[in-house]
Amino acid sequence: MSTDTADIKPVKLGVVGLGRGFMLMLPTFLDDPRVELVGAATTSELKQQEFEKRFGYRAVSTTEELYADPNIEAVYIATPHEMHRDNAIEALASGKHVLVEKPMTIRVSDAAAIVESVEKYQREVIVGPSHSFDVPIVEAGKLIASGKYGRVGMIHAHYYTDFVFRPRRPEELDSAHGGGVVFNQGAHQVDMLLTLTGAMPVSVYGCVGNLDARRPCDGAYSALIEFDNGCIGSVTYSGYGHYDSDADQGWIGEMGALKPPNVYAVARKNLSQVKNEVTAKQSRGFVAGSHVGDVPKFHEHFGNIVISCEKADLRPTAKGIHVYSDDGYEFIPLPLEGSPRAEVVAELYALVRHGMSPVHSARRGYVNVALCEGIYESFRSKQRVEIRMSD
Amino acid sequence: MSTDTADIKPVKLGVVGLGRGFMLMLPTFLDDPRVELVGAATTSELKQQEFEKRFGYRAVSTTEELYADPNIEAVYIATPHEMHRDNAIEALASGKHVLVEKPMTIRVSDAAAIVESVEKYQREVIVGPSHSFDVPIVEAGKLIASGKYGRVGMIHAHYYTDFVFRPRRPEELDSAHGGGVVFNQGAHQVDMLLTLTGAMPVSVYGCVGNLDARRPCDGAYSALIEFDNGCIGSVTYSGYGHYDSDADQGWIGEMGALKPPNVYAVARKNLSQVKNEVTAKQSRGFVAGSHVGDVPKFHEHFGNIVISCEKADLRPTAKGIHVYSDDGYEFIPLPLEGSPRAEVVAELYALVRHGMSPVHSARRGYVNVALCEGIYESFRSKQRVEIRMSD
Ligand SMILES: NC(=O)c1ccc[n+]([C@@H]2O[C@H](COP(=O)([O-])OP(=O)(O)OC[C@H]3O[C@@H](n4cnc5c(N)ncnc54)[C@H](O)[C@@H]3O)[C@@H](O)[C@H]2O)c1
Ligand SMILES: NC(=O)c1ccc[n+]([C@@H]2O[C@H](COP(=O)([O-])OP(=O)(O)OC[C@H]3O[C@@H](n4cnc5c(N)ncnc54)[C@H](O)[C@@H]3O)[C@@H](O)[C@H]2O)c1
Repeated sequence: MSTDTADIKPVKLGVVGLGRGFMLMLPTFLDDPRVELVGAATTSELKQQEFEKRFGYRAVSTTEELYADPNIEAVYIATPHEMHRDNAIEALASGKHVLVEKPMTIRVSDAAAIVESVEKYQREVIVGPSHSFDVPIVEAGKLIASGKYGRVGMIHAHYYTDFVFRPRRPEELDSAHGGGVVFNQGAHQVDMLLTLTGAMPVSVYGCVGNLDARRPCDGAYSALIEFDNGCIGSVTYSGYGHYDSDADQGWIGEMGALKPPNVYAVARKNLSQVKNEVTAKQSRGFVAGSHVGDVPKFHEHFGNIVISCEKADLRPTAKGIHVYSDDGYEFIPLPLEGSPRAEVVAELYALVRHGMSPVHSARRGYVNVALCEGIYESFRSKQRVEIRMSD
Repeated sequence: MSTDTADIKPVKLGVVGLGRGFMLMLPTFLDDPRVELVGAATTSELKQQEFEKRFGYRAVSTTEELYADPNIEAVYIATPHEMHRDNAIEALASGKHVLVEKPMTIRVSDAAAIVESVEKYQREVIVGPSHSFDVPIVEAGKLIASGKYGRVGMIHAHYYTDFVFRPRRPEELDSAHGGGVVFNQGAHQVDMLLTLTGAMPVSVYGCVGNLDARRPCDGAYSALIEFDNGCIGSVTYSGYGHYDSDADQGWIGEMGALKPPNVYAVARKNLSQVKNEVTAKQSRGFVAGSHVGDVPKFHEHFGNIVISCEKADLRPTAKGIHVYSDDGYEFIPLPLEGSPRAEVVAELYALVRHGMSPVHSARRGYVNVALCEGIYESFRSKQRVEIRMSD
């Protein structure tokens, strides 16, 4: 870290839910001096023991007990989507700031309830991590906002992964409970567009589809989003584990680590050998021996993105930003510095220590949820759906 | 050619319009024994002389004179879009089959008039060339139609080119006269989807935009098309000469020739040095010294395409088809054999010599025009537009 660590007073963070999402944040929590894990809530006794052993702080079985701890300044909520609403509102009511996993909720009404609670209890929500925190996305957003390349007209993003074939809880395969790719992966693409355009969405039109009856959720979508600055966002995603578009990123995976280029369809193969999928999913959580993944050498990314401005196209990647401008081509390298996902902790630290309003606020989370819900609503009603911010 | 040339009786073809479109077909006409150029209509005396010198057949100044020639069996219409309707209907009425450049027309009403004339005069229309004739697209379509990979669920295509910065006639920069990228380039993407899905479109929703006031046409679009087999087509295009997505095709250009990878934004640079754009456009037509381009070593292509079926994703390229299936990854090489665009002549030959109904018929041309017009209509009305076949 380049910051002078002597002045840092780490944010005292409690964790709710010690599953896969938590595991993916764990390297950041361990590495970043601006945050300290000082408690956890999990129903699993094994995980409670593991937490106490690793961190020397108490792990409890209910959020009530966790939130009652006055030592805790903020909580990181990494429970299944449908619990985010209650977990977050209860935390806000207990006077804690909240870092909640994406999607903030899977219903606009639940998102509105969180927005209300933020106002009522005067505590803030940060929705994250998500790929809108990725440095190349943030930096591309700054280039656009600078006006240097004129107006942004169109942003196109597509990503082909094996999302559908990773081990899942039953809800994760049920679109009615926020399973499938729209709320899980669309939330990333949509949030990247919010950062890149710096604008509010006006409408969305989208299609979703299932291509594998054995995995009964939507596994692919394509959508068009119109923004109030005139920019068009076009997003396409498939999680069916065939074409892997990390190939277009020089075999850098979503988490910023290099992938072996010649291994085809690992996720589908692994899953076919799994006897109990729920157990397999659990084993990817906070249990002894669970493996997070290879150490990232580059930034995280979320597939291919082309941004068309008046005077340049920009292509952010895990390594930097390709700039194809009126004046010539240039690559802006953005080497990974400090811990991965440090940007999430930075936003949390700025909020808790310096009272700075978060970028990835509850209101923004609401817009994200409205867009994801809008993709479904538009597909059902066969109409363009307008996005309105409740107030 | 692998066909036994001894049995071939070339189709006697008259040409209307000796501009850029004609130049791009010329290598095929010269190389393919199934076709012979036996007359032309052009208002330019210089081009008339050049044609007579090169082909030993008469070039006249009106379509009336050309169509009166009983030696001519079919005509190739390569005039500006807005003339296609009258040029085609007059040819059909004169008893000639028609090969007409894409887009067949720029208005659904004009397309319907051609469909009617086909029925009335019992002569056929082929709309082409277009990138739906490209061998990798046709072969991918056959793989899908075989059912081997299950249902096709989503097809995503995107292409970033310098279309807007090539030398243009004034109409080509005026969307009201079929200029811009929707009718010129969307026609290709839409037609590829028709071949790949083998289905009829049900609806379209799209957005178009201009990102350069000096080139007053739409230069980018993105659209979602729903097909009656449930497949979703997602197409995105930008012609603003920044990011060149031929990079993703190993620097093989649209016409199948290798491009120098390190030359950035040639079209914009060249255009900035042009004094009279109309003259510059004309010099790319059938005039002494005009250069078609490098000899293609691969098939033509139209950018990046990912086809998602139940049991495989397919990616057709200029060199073949990547197949990412449940059983593994495989690349099906499709080397270029015979003349480029031989498939267009094959369809014409089959029609004229064997009475075979063309795939790229007037009715299909109508659907294509309806989709392109639908993109505009949807953008204006902010609604999904249903596609209906007139009958
Ligand atoms: N941003 C990312 O990259 C990313 C990655 C993975 C997951 N996530 C998000 O994290 C969230 C959780 O998903 P996951 O994949 O970790 O699921 P998971 O099943 O692995 O983990 C969920 C955890 O919540 C716990 N839990 C359930 N009920 C609880 C309760 N009442 N009190 C305390 N803990 C409880 C479970 O025991 C489990 O440990 C989701 O919202 C998901 O979108 C985000
Ligand atoms: N499929 C392809 O790859 C491709 C490529 C280029 C053009 N095209 C199509 O070809 C058509 C023509 O475009 P272009 O770029 O060749 O334009 P162009 O201006 O180069 O050529 C048009 C030609 O039509 C001639 N013309 C105009 N009025 C005429 C008349 N009354 N009688 C006879 N000739 C007449 C002009 O003199 C000119 O030679 C368009 O529909 C375009 O979409 C297709």
